[in-house]
Amino acid sequence: MNSLDAEIEKRARTVDDFLVRHFELFSTVDFLAPRLLVESMSYSLHTGGKRFRPVLALLVGEHYNQDLLQILPWAAAVELIHTYSLIHDDLPCMDNDDFRRGKPTNHKVYGEATALLAGDGLQTEAFQLLMKYYSQDAALACQLVERLCTAAGPQGMVGGQALDLQAEKVPPSLAELKQIQKLKTGMLIRVTLEGAALASGASKTTLWLLRYYGEALGLAFQIADDLLDAEQGDQSKSFVSLLGLDGTKELLLETSVKAKEFLNKLTQPNVFLLQLIDYNMNRKV
Amino acid sequence: MNSLDAEIEKRARTVDDFLVRHFELFSTVDFLAPRLLVESMSYSLHTGGKRFRPVLALLVGEHYNQDLLQILPWAAAVELIHTYSLIHDDLPCMDNDDFRRGKPTNHKVYGEATALLAGDGLQTEAFQLLMKYYSQDAALACQLVERLCTAAGPQGMVGGQALDLQAEKVPPSLAELKQIQKLKTGMLIRVTLEGAALASGASKTTLWLLRYYGEALGLAFQIADDLLDAEQGDQSKSFVSLLGLDGTKELLLETSVKAKEFLNKLTQPNVFLLQLIDYNMNRKV
Repeated sequence: MNSLDAEIEKRARTVDDFLVRHFELFSTVDFLAPRLLVESMSYSLHTGGKRFRPVLALLVGEHYNQDLLQILPWAAAVELIHTYSLIHDDLPCMDNDDFRRGKPTNHKVYGEATALLAGDGLQTEAFQLLMKYYSQDAALACQLVERLCTAAGPQGMVGGQALDLQAEKVPPSLAELKQIQKLKTGMLIRVTLEGAALASGASKTTLWLLRYYGEALGLAFQIADDLLDAEQGDQSKSFVSLLGLDGTKELLLETSVKAKEFLNKLTQPNVFLLQLIDYNMNRKV
Repeated sequence: MNSLDAEIEKRARTVDDFLVRHFELFSTVDFLAPRLLVESMSYSLHTGGKRFRPVLALLVGEHYNQDLLQILPWAAAVELIHTYSLIHDDLPCMDNDDFRRGKPTNHKVYGEATALLAGDGLQTEAFQLLMKYYSQDAALACQLVERLCTAAGPQGMVGGQALDLQAEKVPPSLAELKQIQKLKTGMLIRVTLEGAALASGASKTTLWLLRYYGEALGLAFQIADDLLDAEQGDQSKSFVSLLGLDGTKELLLETSVKAKEFLNKLTQPNVFLLQLIDYNMNRKV
């Protein structure tokens, strides 16, 4: 394990611990949520995800010497949104996946109805969590909710999933594919950085630079995913089917260079945020 | 049409107009949400619902002589949550309903995948709408988001739906059935009143009285629904199957009396809020 891997892993475990503790609250006597529902929500939160988004948020917080608790709830809220989207994405009416990260998908374990509700509940819980930890600074809390809604809703992630459905019928152009990926995964990655910067009291300029870095990183992340899928033989709806393997690798390089450029405009860019770009370019999972 | 019907109808149209205008914004050039998704969201928002919850909110606002725009967005946000829950509830993996209010359900028109996303998007949009209209008073906005989350999430509506699923396997006792209904429909009705009172700057005492009124009214609403369903021959999982027709009518009366008692403790209780109790007891749809 190289040093960046270890650094990512350390922060991912911090996020895990926070999520475990948060969901333990759900099992106190006062709490009325049905046990099976909570179990199903927790199941998908702990199936060995990379915690890519939360780790990004923590790195931004560290860059600003922020107290961990100022960033961790934001990081966790983003992960709840991401997890809800995976549960719904795996459902039979969507991608109909039986496994995710080698484990049975939520609906395979708990049934479709409970999986649907677990996703619904995780979305609500993301906003609830923001309220719990940020409402003392109500203006910040509102900014975080507003930005998370934009990134997760019809103008963002959910919109991207809808475009993705349409792309199954009509193959998208390169511009359309970029737009799908921007909405479906890019905006949540971008907002993860923006929200962490906001919670850290970053300047407007920094916010914009991190926003553009996030947008490029999100796209690079998706392109790398497509390349990995292509190695497994799946080239559907992907950059590889439009650009070929070499063209896609070129686009990955271009996008990664762009991400670096934005980051390098920051005074003292965070070294791990920089390294993440190469890490993504070369990753094997 | 008696006078209360007309009063309800008038306010329901105000809510309709607001929702139409809000979703028109989604079709501007700047807006990136896919047209089909927005169409599917709008479809379910405009299938002739009674707008029971939003009307309750408006009545509370009028009681406090509040500007309509101080209450209407809250009323609309609750309706978005209610509508998302109906879309998901109708899906094949849940109740598998082909029709709602005489019209084809969302997934019958747009397919399961789009219906799933429309529900997801409506939930996000509810919080987004609160941000848009209340974030200038950030403390109020946070309170509204927090309460809506509690009412809609695993401790509320979604939790009630999960309990409802379990009740299909093990028939619930009367206490359990009351708990299911409280979570599944009661808490959203209750929070509708609470949120409107908060946005109106009501006192803590008023808030509590409206909360209890809302809780009783919500239960009465559900009991009346069960009685109407029983007339159609459906007595599954209902108060009627546990208490019989006469016992259920008695419970409806008891609960309605309780709702009146709470409301009558208010100085100058709103006459329409009072009339609604009898209206619900005698309604035919």
